[in-house]
Amino acid sequence: MRVVVPFDAANPNSRLSSVLSADQRRGFAAAMLADVLSAVRDAGGEPTVLAAAPVDGVDAPVAVDDRPLSVAVNAALGDLPTAVVMADLALATPAAVGGLFDADGDVVLAPGLAGGTNAVVARHSEFRVDYHGASFRDHVAAAESVGASVATVDSFRLAVDVDEPSDLVDVFVHGDGAAADWLRDAGFELAVRDGDPVVEPNA
Amino acid sequence: MRVVVPFDAANPNSRLSSVLSADQRRGFAAAMLADVLSAVRDAGGEPTVLAAAPVDGVDAPVAVDDRPLSVAVNAALGDLPTAVVMADLALATPAAVGGLFDADGDVVLAPGLAGGTNAVVARHSEFRVDYHGASFRDHVAAAESVGASVATVDSFRLAVDVDEPSDLVDVFVHGDGAAADWLRDAGFELAVRDGDPVVEPNA
Repeated sequence: MRVVVPFDAANPNSRLSSVLSADQRRGFAAAMLADVLSAVRDAGGEPTVLAAAPVDGVDAPVAVDDRPLSVAVNAALGDLPTAVVMADLALATPAAVGGLFDADGDVVLAPGLAGGTNAVVARHSEFRVDYHGASFRDHVAAAESVGASVATVDSFRLAVDVDEPSDLVDVFVHGDGAAADWLRDAGFELAVRDGDPVVEPNA
Repeated sequence: MRVVVPFDAANPNSRLSSVLSADQRRGFAAAMLADVLSAVRDAGGEPTVLAAAPVDGVDAPVAVDDRPLSVAVNAALGDLPTAVVMADLALATPAAVGGLFDADGDVVLAPGLAGGTNAVVARHSEFRVDYHGASFRDHVAAAESVGASVATVDSFRLAVDVDEPSDLVDVFVHGDGAAADWLRDAGFELAVRDGDPVVEPNA
């Protein structure tokens, strides 16, 4: 399946800025992207990275489109079916991505935490994405408005888009790819503070 | 399957105190518990609520044990197999809980966000839970240390334990039970602020 992977190379994962510097965030985002591309390929997908500006060092074709995210994704849907998988799904596995590809529906949606949509399969030519706000609910409505059937994939590994410091805990606990390696190599470790796990620079 | 549902009736979901008063948190917690009990029963489970003190108005047998959570849960494991499902999984569906029950493994684990463990099936008499810290990783190690096979259930609906304000967005977007009704009846609504969905009192 064709898979579009939108990637913010310039200022990725800004909510991690309390933990990671801008340079670190770019390095970590590239590692997460590598994990996503690997999971997509192992699930039988053919990924293209969609970026607002040229990016180097990405192990996939890169399409450049500097328009807003939803506009650029809709322009990239092209021949259907096409999947859209976010670049910060550091926990994605081939099985989870395969479950997305295999689900029946004109539109298949994988929820992201806090109302978002982390992955889509579009098989209906009139369906359009809109990532603003509570996008999951809006995508269900958008599909229904064009008469497209909707299926939902129930996956923790697709639901966690890594954009908050607490998400780094899950990269440590559940990740076994480039993103987890990046965190360890950058000197972070898993600790427990007041009973809660946190990721912090090692002492 | 026997299912133990630990429930904090006294001071539930304290991280929601920026949004909900103590009375509201108790009401909302009871609504989430009702949703969990319903999903467990519809999946073929026989739930018992495990609480530190007697609670009224719960539509299930209540076992009272005022010891720390992990101690009380381990004492309640009893005849195996027994599942342990947290009371704040407001998005749990019969299908998600059924996937937990049906997974093969001496120990079946459903991850919770930020390193936690939201649901367990224990089929091995020597396995013990410990919910402190990064419990998912500890549970894998605990199972392996007693020679128990481990299976993991990949479910967004079991991964979201509703204990942060942003989780309320997912109750609005994905919930269709008592917890979502409770929020609406209490005067909350879904809004979009700076592009992000939030749950707030309606104006």
